[in-house]
Amino acid sequence: MKVAVIGMGLMGGSLSLLLKKHRIATHIIGVENNPEHAAIALNLGLADSIETLISAIENAQLIFLAVPVDVAIELLPIMMPLVKEQIVSDTGSTKLAICKLANSLPNRQQFVAAHPMWGTENSGPQSASDQAFKGRTLVICEAEKSSEKARQLIEYIYTQLGMHILNMNAADHDLHAAYISHVSHIAAYALANTVLEKERDDETIFQLASGGFESTVRLAKSNADMWVPIFKQNKENVLDVLNEHISQLRKFKSCLEKENYTLLHQLILQANKVRRILK
Amino acid sequence: MKVAVIGMGLMGGSLSLLLKKHRIATHIIGVENNPEHAAIALNLGLADSIETLISAIENAQLIFLAVPVDVAIELLPIMMPLVKEQIVSDTGSTKLAICKLANSLPNRQQFVAAHPMWGTENSGPQSASDQAFKGRTLVICEAEKSSEKARQLIEYIYTQLGMHILNMNAADHDLHAAYISHVSHIAAYALANTVLEKERDDETIFQLASGGFESTVRLAKSNADMWVPIFKQNKENVLDVLNEHISQLRKFKSCLEKENYTLLHQLILQANKVRRILK
Repeated sequence: MKVAVIGMGLMGGSLSLLLKKHRIATHIIGVENNPEHAAIALNLGLADSIETLISAIENAQLIFLAVPVDVAIELLPIMMPLVKEQIVSDTGSTKLAICKLANSLPNRQQFVAAHPMWGTENSGPQSASDQAFKGRTLVICEAEKSSEKARQLIEYIYTQLGMHILNMNAADHDLHAAYISHVSHIAAYALANTVLEKERDDETIFQLASGGFESTVRLAKSNADMWVPIFKQNKENVLDVLNEHISQLRKFKSCLEKENYTLLHQLILQANKVRRILK
Repeated sequence: MKVAVIGMGLMGGSLSLLLKKHRIATHIIGVENNPEHAAIALNLGLADSIETLISAIENAQLIFLAVPVDVAIELLPIMMPLVKEQIVSDTGSTKLAICKLANSLPNRQQFVAAHPMWGTENSGPQSASDQAFKGRTLVICEAEKSSEKARQLIEYIYTQLGMHILNMNAADHDLHAAYISHVSHIAAYALANTVLEKERDDETIFQLASGGFESTVRLAKSNADMWVPIFKQNKENVLDVLNEHISQLRKFKSCLEKENYTLLHQLILQANKVRRILK
């Protein structure tokens, strides 16, 4: 099968790598505006050819849209009217905006709104990994609006890559994603800025940073071009969770200020309950 | 050399394991109040015998105090008057309180105030790891108050375990530790509580949690009995950094509220600078 992958970043690159490894794609057509990334994608064998968006849509049977969520919103209205038999699926971390948009475009049934819940703090085709996706969840939104054939193909492919399929409506997806993924990124960014603001001496941070700090701020390395549009599209939910997070931090602050170590202990025991969810 | 390790937890257990592996200790005398932990320490071969504190001090040449920082403050005044030739070193995550205390006790020159900057979110002897300490920094505080012999022995041992030695005064240590380690723990605890508060459905968290969430909340599994005393002893510094952290989070919140995505982008680029410090 000829597969077009729009966006040769971490997500599109990893997808390309795995579609070839699993012999699902016989030829990957990459679409990539950044000439440096295009060259890397060809050199690493992620893409077999780099083509324009229009040519990629014409020549592929299956098209993955793996670009930042603001770019996806711009490209989908160009793409969907050109689609004939091709199946299109996206990989975006927000789903409400793209689903609303897709519902207003031609060939809705050829489109599968999907979010493979995998990522790293790195970006670009050089970060593509054949360990991607495995064991994680693929959320499909508004599956009933996709044709049986389109949905089955996307489910089949991601299942081959080791993902579990979860159906969810787009609004619920964006709400849960705000809780579980988006606010973690803001927390990490803010923590990095806290430490960089307070601790002016890089060498001290470097020497004293133990594993704990590294893992907590890891996401602070994540790419702004990817994350600003996610926060923008999911603004209301993210603000809601961010308010809750600030209020949780204030509880810790208040315990210290009032020297209420019994309550501090209870707050920590409460937090320890993540153990029942995350091994 | 006969070594006593007071506290058979993650730290004391790992230290015991490695002192034997590196043939620094011929016999480890464990001191452990929790009978279950004592039994595990014996079964895992971390300790060769479990003795009382008094007997351990009498029979050992070198004594590591690896207990929560509030317990260390209680035990040191019992231990130091009993010390003759023995060298004593602690492993606590705060250094100002223990240094002040040590200065008021007999045999100050036999004591080395130290903080091996390593840990995991797990606790207890069953979590002891022979991969501990390696490549991390050992902070020694007020080294000038320890005898040359005591300091050299502790430096030699931790260097054998693969640590870098860093000298620092106790107040500076506690300040830097608040920035780099203590606030990361509060951020993780608060994030876990945010998600557990907002997302009542464990199964959804479990299914949607990708690697990002896991790494950011990992520290939220950390033990309350260890961390409450650290926050208590380092209250002023922790409050200072916590205030900064809340104000950094408010900047993200304000960007979203005011839809100032240019500033949001800048805040993220600023946070991305942790890349220059953490690989």
